[in-house]
Amino acid sequence: MKQSSFSIKYQPVHPGTENTTIIFHPETPDLCAIFTPGRTSGERRFFVTDGTVARLPCIQQFTALFDDGRCGRDYLLVIGSGEPYKTIESVLTIVKAALKEGFARKDIFVGIGGGVISDITGFAASIFKRGTSVEFVPTTLLSMVDASIGGKTGCDFDNYKNMIGSFFPARTIHIFPRFVESLSSSQYNSGLAEAFKTALLYDRDLYTIFLEKSESILSRDPAVINEIIPRCAHAKAKIVENDFMENNIRMYLNFGHTFGHALETVVGLGNITHGSAVAWGIGRALSLSARKNFCSQSYCDEVLKMMLLYGWDTEGMPHCVTGGDVGGRIIKAMHKDKKNSNSKICLILQKGLNDTFILEMDDDDILPVLK
Amino acid sequence: MKQSSFSIKYQPVHPGTENTTIIFHPETPDLCAIFTPGRTSGERRFFVTDGTVARLPCIQQFTALFDDGRCGRDYLLVIGSGEPYKTIESVLTIVKAALKEGFARKDIFVGIGGGVISDITGFAASIFKRGTSVEFVPTTLLSMVDASIGGKTGCDFDNYKNMIGSFFPARTIHIFPRFVESLSSSQYNSGLAEAFKTALLYDRDLYTIFLEKSESILSRDPAVINEIIPRCAHAKAKIVENDFMENNIRMYLNFGHTFGHALETVVGLGNITHGSAVAWGIGRALSLSARKNFCSQSYCDEVLKMMLLYGWDTEGMPHCVTGGDVGGRIIKAMHKDKKNSNSKICLILQKGLNDTFILEMDDDDILPVLK
Repeated sequence: MKQSSFSIKYQPVHPGTENTTIIFHPETPDLCAIFTPGRTSGERRFFVTDGTVARLPCIQQFTALFDDGRCGRDYLLVIGSGEPYKTIESVLTIVKAALKEGFARKDIFVGIGGGVISDITGFAASIFKRGTSVEFVPTTLLSMVDASIGGKTGCDFDNYKNMIGSFFPARTIHIFPRFVESLSSSQYNSGLAEAFKTALLYDRDLYTIFLEKSESILSRDPAVINEIIPRCAHAKAKIVENDFMENNIRMYLNFGHTFGHALETVVGLGNITHGSAVAWGIGRALSLSARKNFCSQSYCDEVLKMMLLYGWDTEGMPHCVTGGDVGGRIIKAMHKDKKNSNSKICLILQKGLNDTFILEMDDDDILPVLK
Repeated sequence: MKQSSFSIKYQPVHPGTENTTIIFHPETPDLCAIFTPGRTSGERRFFVTDGTVARLPCIQQFTALFDDGRCGRDYLLVIGSGEPYKTIESVLTIVKAALKEGFARKDIFVGIGGGVISDITGFAASIFKRGTSVEFVPTTLLSMVDASIGGKTGCDFDNYKNMIGSFFPARTIHIFPRFVESLSSSQYNSGLAEAFKTALLYDRDLYTIFLEKSESILSRDPAVINEIIPRCAHAKAKIVENDFMENNIRMYLNFGHTFGHALETVVGLGNITHGSAVAWGIGRALSLSARKNFCSQSYCDEVLKMMLLYGWDTEGMPHCVTGGDVGGRIIKAMHKDKKNSNSKICLILQKGLNDTFILEMDDDDILPVLK
């Protein structure tokens, strides 16, 4: 035997599905009509939701059909609500219940809820028997405009955001914009931050809507909601289609997130909404862009002024953090970001509206905008 | 807003890598030469091995370079040996240490060991920051001929084999056939069972080698080892290239495994080698094939007779199981197999040498070969 080698080439297949269909439903959410739980033919469904969503009036009719989790061949698992439940333990609780109920890899998982539910249900689906299909019904604005779309799944780990997960897109996403009527103001505001990010990154018309229609937006006027959600979904879909594995342009979607995730870590996961943290991060990224003369001061000022209309924190020293050395603690958490590949911090910055780029920076460049 | 929908199509990308290079090294295994731990440029490596492998003389030179796990920018994690460590806890131990040591998604995981190490290291790599590259150095015959090749990763869960995992192929696999010199007889025999499976499924010449050269095989004659390993690696690679996601022909590789995994579950994971269980399962699948007249009795008898030469259990009632209702307990465990999609059991059967098919069967058809 001499030293020798050969290569295996894999088919250009995908982990689970090659296609996501997004369906917009203008009517009042009615999950019974979409899923007909207990149906006797077709795939078995393993539904996952959380306690808060399960209690929504428009969902109760659906959940009431399940007795001890079961409705015919279908199953409903209700887990705890919110970021503290975005854990590997929740993911394994889903897997264990699906195993106990005898689900097969040809069956389907359905996540009904916000970003936490879609992230952990998608992650569970991606590892259950090495991958079963998944569908989502996003119930928060944040999930409708961002989290449920694009195949990123995962959970927090070791007090850091989304440190484990997979790329595993949903087969179908059912979007009911009228779910926004059921959101608390902080939940609604959190989703707005991601929609605002989309405007800054890709959609000049959406930026104008945010600039001119703050009252309609804040009062949840259905006309403006029905404009914002599909715009964001289409923008996200376009990016994901062109860079599914986040090798280049998809990284722009992390605009504000390197700062924002670090803030979430410093405050404690779940103690601030994701959107509030991201909004603060957008302000920091733009302040840094202006400070380094990448963008004009006037663009930065216009955006920060708009952000105040929506109640977002535009200060270098975030209001929600207590204790000393805030900047140092935030920088330290920023070093754990998945985008970093060396001792520098990888940031998404802007030269102007819809003009974005990526730059690796040293701590000393970043610290001045955290004061 | 009217009901409307649109689709996202994903690029034909792959979860991690589109290509695996398999390198055969005829020399005595020397990991220092291949990896030069502590090198100052290139990717950082997160090495994973187990206590048994770490103590092999040819590996000690490598492990001695690490101090408290570290050698320059590289890291070595040593976990417990064997099937009892093929758990989600081991997977998360890897992730947690890599996070603590500041590894990035552009760095690489390297699994050095048998099938358990490659399965859990590959799984950890697939979920760490949503996927980092992985390489393997298989040290067991089983891993060289089967486990390390083809991208299946995972761990046991809830006392069932490989219930969670992913499809995530290694970038490079370094095969040193001379590692077989370090194996216990039961480890060696376990690997032979998978090689024997390859002969039955795909390779008539390899079947002849097993038939005519049992003494050379059992004495680990390097000439015959150097023939068997590349034959199996090429056969497996060919199947995986044509059916990566196990939609059809890759399922044949589960020949003997539905019975074998069930036996492992009934005996208790780790209490029987995987190969012994699979060998017993191959005997059961062929006995069932002959009983149902799918294959000739003479083919079945020839194979069972050969199997006795290699010390494999060819009885319907496996020697290693104690207690009553053995058949019923095995059938119950068989129902948990990932291939099943309904109340029947999906089995891989044969019409003859290198002539394989899949059939769903009822319990009553299977029970007679478990007596």
